[in-house]
Amino acid sequence: MKTTKKIVLPENEMPTAWYNIVADMPTKPMPMLNPKTKQVLTKEDMEPIFAKALIDQEFSQERWIEIPDEVRDLYRIYRPTPLVRASGLEKALDTPAKIYFKNESVSPVGSHKLNSAIPQAYFNKIQGIKHLTTETGAGQWGSSLSIACKHFGLDLRVFMVKVSYEQKPYRKAVMNTYGAQVFASPSAETEIGRKMRQQFPGTNGSLGMAISEAVEEALKDEYTRYALGSVLNHVMLHQTIIGLEAEKQMEIAGDYPDVVIGCFGGGSNFGGISLPFLRHRLVDGKQVRVIAAEPASCPKLTRGKFAYDYGDTEGYTPLLPMYTLGHDFQPASIHAGGLRYHGAGTIISQLRKDGFVEAQAIQQEETFKAGILFAQAEGIIPAPESTHAISVAIREALKAREEGTEKVILFNLSGHGLIDMMSYEKYLQGGLHNFEIEQSTIDSSIESIQSLQP
Amino acid sequence: MKTTKKIVLPENEMPTAWYNIVADMPTKPMPMLNPKTKQVLTKEDMEPIFAKALIDQEFSQERWIEIPDEVRDLYRIYRPTPLVRASGLEKALDTPAKIYFKNESVSPVGSHKLNSAIPQAYFNKIQGIKHLTTETGAGQWGSSLSIACKHFGLDLRVFMVKVSYEQKPYRKAVMNTYGAQVFASPSAETEIGRKMRQQFPGTNGSLGMAISEAVEEALKDEYTRYALGSVLNHVMLHQTIIGLEAEKQMEIAGDYPDVVIGCFGGGSNFGGISLPFLRHRLVDGKQVRVIAAEPASCPKLTRGKFAYDYGDTEGYTPLLPMYTLGHDFQPASIHAGGLRYHGAGTIISQLRKDGFVEAQAIQQEETFKAGILFAQAEGIIPAPESTHAISVAIREALKAREEGTEKVILFNLSGHGLIDMMSYEKYLQGGLHNFEIEQSTIDSSIESIQSLQP
Repeated sequence: MKTTKKIVLPENEMPTAWYNIVADMPTKPMPMLNPKTKQVLTKEDMEPIFAKALIDQEFSQERWIEIPDEVRDLYRIYRPTPLVRASGLEKALDTPAKIYFKNESVSPVGSHKLNSAIPQAYFNKIQGIKHLTTETGAGQWGSSLSIACKHFGLDLRVFMVKVSYEQKPYRKAVMNTYGAQVFASPSAETEIGRKMRQQFPGTNGSLGMAISEAVEEALKDEYTRYALGSVLNHVMLHQTIIGLEAEKQMEIAGDYPDVVIGCFGGGSNFGGISLPFLRHRLVDGKQVRVIAAEPASCPKLTRGKFAYDYGDTEGYTPLLPMYTLGHDFQPASIHAGGLRYHGAGTIISQLRKDGFVEAQAIQQEETFKAGILFAQAEGIIPAPESTHAISVAIREALKAREEGTEKVILFNLSGHGLIDMMSYEKYLQGGLHNFEIEQSTIDSSIESIQSLQP
Repeated sequence: MKTTKKIVLPENEMPTAWYNIVADMPTKPMPMLNPKTKQVLTKEDMEPIFAKALIDQEFSQERWIEIPDEVRDLYRIYRPTPLVRASGLEKALDTPAKIYFKNESVSPVGSHKLNSAIPQAYFNKIQGIKHLTTETGAGQWGSSLSIACKHFGLDLRVFMVKVSYEQKPYRKAVMNTYGAQVFASPSAETEIGRKMRQQFPGTNGSLGMAISEAVEEALKDEYTRYALGSVLNHVMLHQTIIGLEAEKQMEIAGDYPDVVIGCFGGGSNFGGISLPFLRHRLVDGKQVRVIAAEPASCPKLTRGKFAYDYGDTEGYTPLLPMYTLGHDFQPASIHAGGLRYHGAGTIISQLRKDGFVEAQAIQQEETFKAGILFAQAEGIIPAPESTHAISVAIREALKAREEGTEKVILFNLSGHGLIDMMSYEKYLQGGLHNFEIEQSTIDSSIESIQSLQP
């Protein structure tokens, strides 16, 4: 009897609650601050922007938060996702390590983002909200929220970073197919958008600008709210479904991971796979390591500073306590668009500060080399973001070979790369390079947020 | 307890043999003919082109043909695929019908083509073949064969129809990522390619030309063979894994289909889903209907003629007994590129002739409307090819509503559309139209194959 390739969890064993690690953190995350007053941000401050249930989750210290039936129903379109034994990759690396990956690429949009889009749309819906706004960079988040809004009968307006809007017409078409409206940001739809267009004609846009536009629209009336796809605690919470399923599946496989790896942008897929395992370390003292794989061109966890900073580039959001490169930091335009974010979510930042989270920065060439090795060994072409996690998994597997240890490695395949094939083409043609950042660049960017500290 | 959304078959229940319907056909398919002599084609005639084991399958009358372990191992990357209850679509249509679909879009290339690519690469490999050649239109077949060849250590040269090569750079990048070489056809690599380029400068290429180039290369030496992704009996055979799994899954669901639907190009995905069910009709007298969904712009089953014709446009292949529009027929450039083929495979043609296979022709606008309804209801954006099957499923579900009957409908979702989003974008912008074909056009195209008849 062969080892099972895919460990499949039956639908009726899908977790019924999300895991909130705040309950188990030895040091609780520091509070968000109102950027004007530098006072602690209250739930009421957030109510014009987010649905109340999501704000409650944002502030919650409860360990388990129930997943509503309506959310689980929609999860069942693609969940539970398979846990896969990467036997092809193990063979290619000639490693004694056992490598597993959680395959989030099987969702209809091809990534994990739907895990939070569904509950966000749901909780807005039951509050009576009619319209949502959001921003999207690479387009995964916007696509996910488009499906979720269509299902729950909300309409959605997406502000898509202009350069992505132009370079990724497929992603825009996906959102349109699901019935969402998509605007290149900065757009003519908002005050801030019009101001930006005047001030910086020909700008490529940025995630920060797009967030500012989406938030401005959300504030327009009482039936409109805003939704964010990463960074915040409630997003991290929803994504724990990944790790909770993986926990059950690893048990079925009869293994326990020595190391859990996720790529790192704002933290949502990394937190999703790793927090349920980190719980075993916090609560049961298990020796599980968790590693965030970040791009060398946007190295907030390895070279950033723990400080209060804005979530966007324009300074409209609350101040968040996080590892940051400074909100003015301009990452090189690498192909892992989803990882080009200046800061790390509050929960992960605190856990990193307290020594529970490791981080490794990886150059672009290493990630694409890893992506192609994985594609040829396992069949699935990974998203450029996910190749960062694969790179670290490969590093760990090669170390296991050197040491002759039968390590168990688990990583999250956050998405497939079928909509990002031009990046691979460019790499194969030798047109894709590494980016080195001068320390002085990081220093001066971080210097500029000094005045924001309370 | 909710109805299960996805009926998942455990890996160890994956079928161990393919089903060869020839064993149960009341009238056996007519033989292929040598185009020069019009004599019955022998196995030996085919040996310079195809692996011997595949030729044996092509001529076999055995009912069950064992799936080698090495093939099943690789199938396990994505198989068994889920059978999904289309509860969202049922609700959107307000129909009493139960709709199920087999989700072949979960394969790494996003379609069913890998089901035949894997065994074709395998049987060539064990014969000692080192190089494969093939053609690809939309690129699904070429991508699938690229993965399979990489796995079994064969190198692969793909001749890709020039217009697709230019319009679908993502598909080319997928093949390159898996390590295949891809040439725009007609290419400078072959005699026939060079001749075509001279004779028709600026030609868009065609599947027929690309086949001719790939076959020419395969004939070059004894270590090179050719692989075809549809039409032939052995391809149909490999694809029956779809229907065999669905048969077990429908049993788990406690239902049996009244009607089984697949979109129709050369017949591979249609045969794959339907032949195992048609067996119940041939052997047990079950009243199951099977319907081929073809594009109105390439209506070989509804408006073509049963006759001997070439498989390619240049007349290099054997003569096949099939429903055909004539090998010179030029279908309009619809977006379902995989369905733009002038003929139907021999087995399906004979079954159609004998009244076991129904067919419906669908216009492009209806298919995209159905695709968007499906995407919004079920989350998955279907391939333009698959929207033809969805259209017929919707027609049947609406008929069930009119008649008030609880019909059970099963269709094959042969692939997702994430790499074909520009077609959706074009539809949403109103730029995509129906095509009517004059009967005289079909008549004259069919007239031209009169001389080929024995």
